[in-house]
Amino acid sequence: MKMLDLLLKKRSGLEMTPAELEFISAGAADGSIPDYQLSSWLMAAFLNGLTPAETAALTRAMALSGKKLDLSSIKGMKIDKHSTGGVGDGVSIALAPVVAACGVVVPMMSGRGLGHTGGTLDKLEAMKGFKVRLEPSYIVKQLKASGLSMFGQTEQLAPSDKKLYALRDASCTVEALPLIVASILSKKYAEDITGLVMDVKYGSGAFLKDFKKSRELAVALMKTAKLLGIRCVAVMTAMNEPLGLAVGNGIEVSQSIKILAGEKGPEDFMRVLEVLSGWMIHLGGKARSAAEGEEKARAAIADGSALEKFRLMVKWQGGDARVVGDPDRFMPKAKLFKDIRASRAGFLTAMEARTVGFASVALGAGRAKAEDAVDFGAGFILEKKPGDRVKPGDIIARTYASSPAKLAEGVKMFESSLAYGPKAPRKEPLIREIIK
Amino acid sequence: MKMLDLLLKKRSGLEMTPAELEFISAGAADGSIPDYQLSSWLMAAFLNGLTPAETAALTRAMALSGKKLDLSSIKGMKIDKHSTGGVGDGVSIALAPVVAACGVVVPMMSGRGLGHTGGTLDKLEAMKGFKVRLEPSYIVKQLKASGLSMFGQTEQLAPSDKKLYALRDASCTVEALPLIVASILSKKYAEDITGLVMDVKYGSGAFLKDFKKSRELAVALMKTAKLLGIRCVAVMTAMNEPLGLAVGNGIEVSQSIKILAGEKGPEDFMRVLEVLSGWMIHLGGKARSAAEGEEKARAAIADGSALEKFRLMVKWQGGDARVVGDPDRFMPKAKLFKDIRASRAGFLTAMEARTVGFASVALGAGRAKAEDAVDFGAGFILEKKPGDRVKPGDIIARTYASSPAKLAEGVKMFESSLAYGPKAPRKEPLIREIIK
Repeated sequence: MKMLDLLLKKRSGLEMTPAELEFISAGAADGSIPDYQLSSWLMAAFLNGLTPAETAALTRAMALSGKKLDLSSIKGMKIDKHSTGGVGDGVSIALAPVVAACGVVVPMMSGRGLGHTGGTLDKLEAMKGFKVRLEPSYIVKQLKASGLSMFGQTEQLAPSDKKLYALRDASCTVEALPLIVASILSKKYAEDITGLVMDVKYGSGAFLKDFKKSRELAVALMKTAKLLGIRCVAVMTAMNEPLGLAVGNGIEVSQSIKILAGEKGPEDFMRVLEVLSGWMIHLGGKARSAAEGEEKARAAIADGSALEKFRLMVKWQGGDARVVGDPDRFMPKAKLFKDIRASRAGFLTAMEARTVGFASVALGAGRAKAEDAVDFGAGFILEKKPGDRVKPGDIIARTYASSPAKLAEGVKMFESSLAYGPKAPRKEPLIREIIK
Repeated sequence: MKMLDLLLKKRSGLEMTPAELEFISAGAADGSIPDYQLSSWLMAAFLNGLTPAETAALTRAMALSGKKLDLSSIKGMKIDKHSTGGVGDGVSIALAPVVAACGVVVPMMSGRGLGHTGGTLDKLEAMKGFKVRLEPSYIVKQLKASGLSMFGQTEQLAPSDKKLYALRDASCTVEALPLIVASILSKKYAEDITGLVMDVKYGSGAFLKDFKKSRELAVALMKTAKLLGIRCVAVMTAMNEPLGLAVGNGIEVSQSIKILAGEKGPEDFMRVLEVLSGWMIHLGGKARSAAEGEEKARAAIADGSALEKFRLMVKWQGGDARVVGDPDRFMPKAKLFKDIRASRAGFLTAMEARTVGFASVALGAGRAKAEDAVDFGAGFILEKKPGDRVKPGDIIARTYASSPAKLAEGVKMFESSLAYGPKAPRKEPLIREIIK
């Protein structure tokens, strides 16, 4: 097979065979196809598209370009969750132990933050000693013993995705739906799961702002997952403002631990947590419906079993488990802080999520480039959300950072995300649709 | 300016500005834009096209990516010729001195053979000592003194074309009309000419086989040349069988020298030579019409002035001028030869040009890869052409090669190009259209 022939085929809009897509994926993984041919193919795929069959075949080929996890020795359904990324969305950290506490095996593979969106791996690493780089054999052992593991993509897992992802970034082909789908699902397919609940965000802080486009992505993900034999549900969630009341790695983990410990969490955060839990538990075969799954999730929080699962995971993954009993004391918090106060009377009408995300990058809590380090103690604790009535001087958020310059920059940016008005804004529904 | 933004623009089908195209061309020339971004842009340009304004701007940018020739010190029109490439088409070697003999300044920039098509530079180098790598200052001096120079593209001339050409080859974007146009005309624009006569071939041995497609290329070339201020005429010439009776570097030069010396040349070859001469002389301001140009061309051959121009050029460019007086003695000829004879009685109905071209590569007279060496003495001398009546045993061609294996391979291939029939074939018009 010759890459030039495959370029010609995609350039001409013809459908490629699974063997041809395997050739491309393998060539991307082992470097035998030069970057300039891969990027040219990516542009042709962007402009001429990939059929559902091609997308599924590419996804499988990418998953098989490295080493798959082998969970066949673990009985029952293995359910993961994927989010297209948001601001303040630390839901996974509470979600995984809740679902595992209900008897579902949860191998949860997560990523790092980049740009305005946070990443679960960074949040987990805010816990002292917590390891997210686990050997496949260790993941299997942990899942067998405890039903829960949260980890990052290893070098061996879907290496062609790593290569193609970097080239998409450099060749302006990031937004191609089939390539996004293949990138997301190749890692999930390589993870050997049976079901997947996806939180597909839309709105200003989402990967795809437009609801229609975001829904298209959800549908494409579902279609491909089905062709790969993965049961899949997509929850369409608004991301116009931060979710919950915490933005920042350590700050978000603290919020989740407190929720697991039974504290009343922010309404929006709790709703997303419950809906995603309900579906994961249902797909995991431990509830007859998503609604019943939600009941079980609430019970697992109420009876402390979810917090226990979390503590067990922290121990398995090398973390200091004292954080579970007293997050305020054991989670890192940056030493400088400043309150952001309302400048007007009336209603807070906006807290634009993308800007808040970049404000958090400015504080040091996120990454502008993939190689940047993250300040686990930096971030915002929100006291008000859009729709709340405010008067001048009310605290809207407390800001944490490690240097005066970063603090000032983050505060300034956060303030630019705010809008006020005489009336409460009309709110978008938090969960607009569930695609089953 | 960022290449990613320019990729996005072309991907979205938007028209790029001259400044943006200059950025890309300069980045290709100096290596500051990585190959994977260039190839991705090439694919986007292939699929989304370039407007006439973009094509002209890219052409100019490519021409200016290096050092232009500066012919401003030479008075009058400077006319070049470009052929899209054929088999047995050594017309340039007779054409340039004929036109120069009529008082037109002829800076002729040529290329090398690749695949089934021959290249003028290789043919010229078949003359012992003849140099085609000339310094720009030397070209100007030679043109001033003699009105004629035939040379190859230097490293400094349109370097971004060199880069983009190689990447087009590797990224399956060779056939994009605007990119073909920009590649051809950037070198002509950098040559500082005022007019250009193009021999645009169609048929089995042409770059574009289909007449309609080839005509589209001619029209696109004309349109862009006009935007660049170059006067241009395109002659649409059939290339289904070799032109003339010689195929091979030294063999074709001998044929041209004999024609310049007044021998009766092959009818098809002479027709193309006269038509192209007529237009070059007319564009060069030395005849009121192309027809008058043809008259002058015939006169320049008849009175020996064209042969004198040729001799002068051979001297200026370091060649052994004795070749001009006795090509049969001084042109290289491979030591092995074999006659190809008619296998049937009737009419020769085909001598498929592309196959003959590859047969000539097999003999060693052409190149399969750009880095291959060329055997100047190898090739075919044709005794019959399609339409000729033959009986078994008639010599169709004499074959020359330097090794028995190459000779056998070339003969076998040549034979596969032939077809016989009971009637003479209907001939395509040799010159189907002249686009002015």
